[in-house]
Amino acid sequence: MSASASTHDLDLVLGIDIGGTNTKLGFITRGGDTVASTAIPTDADNFEHFFHQLITATRILQTEVRAHTRLLGVGIGAPNANYYKGTIESPPNLGWGAITPLADRMHAEMRVPVRITNDANAAALGEMLFGAARGMKDFVVLTLGTGLGSGIVCGGQLIYGHDGFAGELGHTAVNVNGRKCGCGKRGCLETYVSATGICRTVYKLLADYTEPSPLREIPFAQLKATQITDAALQGDYIAREAFRYTGRVLGMKLADTVVTTSPEAIILFGGLTRAKELLIEPAQHYMNEFTMPFFRGKTKLLISPLEDGANTAVLGAAALMWNELPAA
Amino acid sequence: MSASASTHDLDLVLGIDIGGTNTKLGFITRGGDTVASTAIPTDADNFEHFFHQLITATRILQTEVRAHTRLLGVGIGAPNANYYKGTIESPPNLGWGAITPLADRMHAEMRVPVRITNDANAAALGEMLFGAARGMKDFVVLTLGTGLGSGIVCGGQLIYGHDGFAGELGHTAVNVNGRKCGCGKRGCLETYVSATGICRTVYKLLADYTEPSPLREIPFAQLKATQITDAALQGDYIAREAFRYTGRVLGMKLADTVVTTSPEAIILFGGLTRAKELLIEPAQHYMNEFTMPFFRGKTKLLISPLEDGANTAVLGAAALMWNELPAA
Repeated sequence: MSASASTHDLDLVLGIDIGGTNTKLGFITRGGDTVASTAIPTDADNFEHFFHQLITATRILQTEVRAHTRLLGVGIGAPNANYYKGTIESPPNLGWGAITPLADRMHAEMRVPVRITNDANAAALGEMLFGAARGMKDFVVLTLGTGLGSGIVCGGQLIYGHDGFAGELGHTAVNVNGRKCGCGKRGCLETYVSATGICRTVYKLLADYTEPSPLREIPFAQLKATQITDAALQGDYIAREAFRYTGRVLGMKLADTVVTTSPEAIILFGGLTRAKELLIEPAQHYMNEFTMPFFRGKTKLLISPLEDGANTAVLGAAALMWNELPAA
Repeated sequence: MSASASTHDLDLVLGIDIGGTNTKLGFITRGGDTVASTAIPTDADNFEHFFHQLITATRILQTEVRAHTRLLGVGIGAPNANYYKGTIESPPNLGWGAITPLADRMHAEMRVPVRITNDANAAALGEMLFGAARGMKDFVVLTLGTGLGSGIVCGGQLIYGHDGFAGELGHTAVNVNGRKCGCGKRGCLETYVSATGICRTVYKLLADYTEPSPLREIPFAQLKATQITDAALQGDYIAREAFRYTGRVLGMKLADTVVTTSPEAIILFGGLTRAKELLIEPAQHYMNEFTMPFFRGKTKLLISPLEDGANTAVLGAAALMWNELPAA
């Protein structure tokens, strides 16, 4: 008996990460290898134009991988994506209208199953299949970027909620009278714990303290979290205080997360984690101090081993689809 | 062809609710009818003695229902119950030791599947099978008793967490410098929103305000939440303020719950809900005010239709087992 040629085909999933500025796509194996990848600018004003460019880029990429491969599905990470309906709904940074039926449109082109969710949920599945959460069934991933996204996995299932939009830990309240948030509330976690949050913290500290710091030379509008991380790693007092404060606020809110879903681990992803123990140590300390004694020391706080940038968001999007495909 | 007699047998589950003082048990149909029920005192000092009494009571109850019935399983609600291991672990009010293998012991006696979890999780499954959450897959149940228990259901699955103990919303933080909690922390939600919490609130209000109130005649140690509810329903200013404050604190924390698991409904159960809109209205108002605008008005806040006391806890315990039995 001889196996047919098709049993030797390489199975692939197309992962697509739609950002406000750029959209990345790549063909990903079940093991998490990227066979081919590319990127296009995101046309934030015109969905039809964007979609045409996306399909064109996909077809070109397919010519690189077509021989001896089989496309099993498409996974997409996108802002305000509704997993249940396959739609993108009024994303704040994309003028595509109230409801964009992205999954249906993609399925009509590619004729394979399509799944969509937001980038933080995709990141959580990326950690489960390819990162720090391999082998775990209960964990939380926080993506620390411009904002704070989160994906919550319980019993091996991503939590979508009744409407498909669960997992917005970035908009739980640190202080209901606190910093103004882009969502319209005050004091949301992401106004403290994110790239923009730590910039706000630095400016407050520059006002409250008198220590010299290279950060005093940078106008607020030009300050970047990477500069704060660099300064902290070089021992700057203000920058280190900013990470200590950020870690404290994070830890205090994670104490609530611990008693709510009792995760095996909470995994941090994104640029701020480059500060490593400067962020993790205060976060872990306050998470344990402020959680119910019964839960202390049970939940690990980890930094994602996946690289920020590169193909990680595409990997997460592909993981969304791979997670629903039966093992070969 | 004639059906065998056994196909006409009535299928039953034994539900057991273990409380600090009393243990209730009953045989429950799939439809939620109680065929027979009884109660025994809980021997809080001696598990072996308690277990012997429990089995004796079960055997006596079985003689009432044995004819034409079939026992399919046992569901148990108990403090500090570990669903995964079937054990009770160091319950604060029971001196049974670190680990009590209750499910194994019960299985050895009854020879049917046994499931155990804490009473709030059992209450959540009771609502899903027999109460306000029928037909829902994403909801949260809060039990407002001496403390505040919670059961979180996502995608039709109860959230147990990696260790079996998830769902302790009563120990999320309202104010980390706030009221001392029995758990060892400060400012836990249950120190404000529970029967004991509202008593503490009343005493604070009696100090802060000068309005006359019948509650001024009751010593702190004798004050019961039912008296506050009665006074509030009769229009007493202090009691109504206490419910308004309790509802506000509850609503502010539920705003976090809404963005975390995005439930279709949050269902309140227990004595405090007798105050109805005096509790629900401020809770709903502040839940919406303090939640992310995108989520406002999406999550219903409901009072359980199941009666506090009576057989409801037994019903919830039975629901834990019924939920895992395939439909006939």
